[in-house]
Amino acid sequence: MKTNGERIGNVAKQNNVRLRPHIKTHKCIEVARIQTAGHDGAITVSTLAEAKAFSKHGFSDITYAVPIERGKFEEAIEILRSGVKLNLLTDDAATVKDLDEASGKAGVNFNVFLKIDCGTHRVGVEPHTAAAIDIPRQISDAANLNFAGILTHAGHSYDVRSVEAVKEVARHERDCMVELAERLRDASIEVPIVSIGSTPTINHVDHLKGVDEVRPGNYIFFDAFQATLGSCSFDDTALTVLAAVIHRDTQRQKIVVDAGAIALSKDRGPVSIDPGCGYGHVLDLDGNETGMRVTSLSQEHGEIQAADDAALARFPVGSRVRILANHSCLTAAQHSHYNVLENMEIVDRWDIHRGW
Amino acid sequence: MKTNGERIGNVAKQNNVRLRPHIKTHKCIEVARIQTAGHDGAITVSTLAEAKAFSKHGFSDITYAVPIERGKFEEAIEILRSGVKLNLLTDDAATVKDLDEASGKAGVNFNVFLKIDCGTHRVGVEPHTAAAIDIPRQISDAANLNFAGILTHAGHSYDVRSVEAVKEVARHERDCMVELAERLRDASIEVPIVSIGSTPTINHVDHLKGVDEVRPGNYIFFDAFQATLGSCSFDDTALTVLAAVIHRDTQRQKIVVDAGAIALSKDRGPVSIDPGCGYGHVLDLDGNETGMRVTSLSQEHGEIQAADDAALARFPVGSRVRILANHSCLTAAQHSHYNVLENMEIVDRWDIHRGW
Repeated sequence: MKTNGERIGNVAKQNNVRLRPHIKTHKCIEVARIQTAGHDGAITVSTLAEAKAFSKHGFSDITYAVPIERGKFEEAIEILRSGVKLNLLTDDAATVKDLDEASGKAGVNFNVFLKIDCGTHRVGVEPHTAAAIDIPRQISDAANLNFAGILTHAGHSYDVRSVEAVKEVARHERDCMVELAERLRDASIEVPIVSIGSTPTINHVDHLKGVDEVRPGNYIFFDAFQATLGSCSFDDTALTVLAAVIHRDTQRQKIVVDAGAIALSKDRGPVSIDPGCGYGHVLDLDGNETGMRVTSLSQEHGEIQAADDAALARFPVGSRVRILANHSCLTAAQHSHYNVLENMEIVDRWDIHRGW
Repeated sequence: MKTNGERIGNVAKQNNVRLRPHIKTHKCIEVARIQTAGHDGAITVSTLAEAKAFSKHGFSDITYAVPIERGKFEEAIEILRSGVKLNLLTDDAATVKDLDEASGKAGVNFNVFLKIDCGTHRVGVEPHTAAAIDIPRQISDAANLNFAGILTHAGHSYDVRSVEAVKEVARHERDCMVELAERLRDASIEVPIVSIGSTPTINHVDHLKGVDEVRPGNYIFFDAFQATLGSCSFDDTALTVLAAVIHRDTQRQKIVVDAGAIALSKDRGPVSIDPGCGYGHVLDLDGNETGMRVTSLSQEHGEIQAADDAALARFPVGSRVRILANHSCLTAAQHSHYNVLENMEIVDRWDIHRGW
């Protein structure tokens, strides 16, 4: 984990961009401190509950990277008033109008990004639409809002099947944002920050000229998905779930562990690249691959097909395995805390701040 | 929820069997009290953390319905010593030997069930194997263990495609257990309890002669899966996730809500019966179907394809929908509490006891 944090920290430094790590992956104060060591402590969150939890531990520059809606104005204002620079984002003109009014009534000013859709087609406005110019102007002109810049997330970098395809997504993510910033500046709209980033694209982008800020999150732990996609090696992965063998069936050549759909999450993983990925790689206690995968999940049971009789013989009822899950963000969110390993010994316990 | 509780309570009474509800579905003290109103308060749990949490609130007869392994002996002994009748289960002769030794050292006696595989092939011994006689004898003969009986869960009732197929599974679940109990009694092994049960089978079994106890859980909330399977109607479902619209795209005719893979879980639902089930049914605030489904999920985003322009027009950014999730057990486990509705008003807040 520390090595992953340092490596991406260096990528940001070398490219002269601010790293604003997305803490939704781990939801953990201690991990965020490692990610922001030597930085200004700016972070990205996915819920206002995360913003509150982290603000109580000294993080005071926080971007809530999910489009704001009016039901959350009151809570956002409360966080802003507690002394946090809380940056919001939107892609909706009606919400800008309402947020301006609510901010005026509360006597506060929000920094607001325009969320851009650079190809993921999840949320955001597309860069070549009228809204991509009109909403920034509307935010800039609003009495109680500051236009913070433009922000995107190339989520479709998770859906491709090769490193070359990730590189193409990364180039496009950067280029479409830098071009939009130029058009906004040509239209006399100041663009303080161009913010991009996902773990696959930050690992593979060729340069970051014109970009001010990157927001990867998953890189701190990585997972079976990212290793399969080529964003990291399997040795770089840093999060596993400890599980106990509760059943062994020599006839069906399988074991069952006490980590099921809740402990691992039911993320299906990189099925387009690795159809047999199942729900995670089964490692021994030293972190070595056993060649087995978690093949099916129910609430508190994980079924594991054994590679051969020898694999089965290693794991009687009561023995332990470690599961490298498909998607570390979803797996971590299922737990209340991490057991921190150093040289394979548990040296600390760190809390996970969940909820909404 | 109350109606579901009463109905299954009455099914148990009419069939003269004990209802030992599985509280893994809700993990909530107040819900368990509704399920056990007028009963002896016996419950089923899926983790020792659930056993501990419920024992602190007066539940003192608890079956931990996942095979025990030696790493959990110490915690189980601690719970037993706190005054709880904690019933364990196993399918492993080596574990029986170790549990007997550990119980002897601790000066305690455990009630231990043999877990039977009646066709699910997840855990348990098959009823016609030598182990199905040998392990009960081993438990009966152990100095510090009491043979509690035989226990099964027809989990494969979730995988079938019709009510007729569920009925067949239910009949088989009952018959194979009653027959095994007879063979054990013929072998002079006392069988205090024959315990069966899943929500689909308890809803569809024709009689329960020879059965002592049923352990359904999901029935208290039901969900989109059970309604699709025919275990209930959609009107019987009692758990939804409130979500805010954070994005609307008239071109792609979709909305995005702030309930994603964490808030809903990524359970794929009854895809074999309803290939377009997605990740949940989208209801309006009054609980009426909108005709839309949650089509894809990322961590904090749920994408919903709109049925038509009219559906889209009803849900601007900032409006609210309710999501009837595919699998209520997994969805509930993602949250810290329930908001309790009576006549569409929030009247209470009940805690959810998560973790391991």
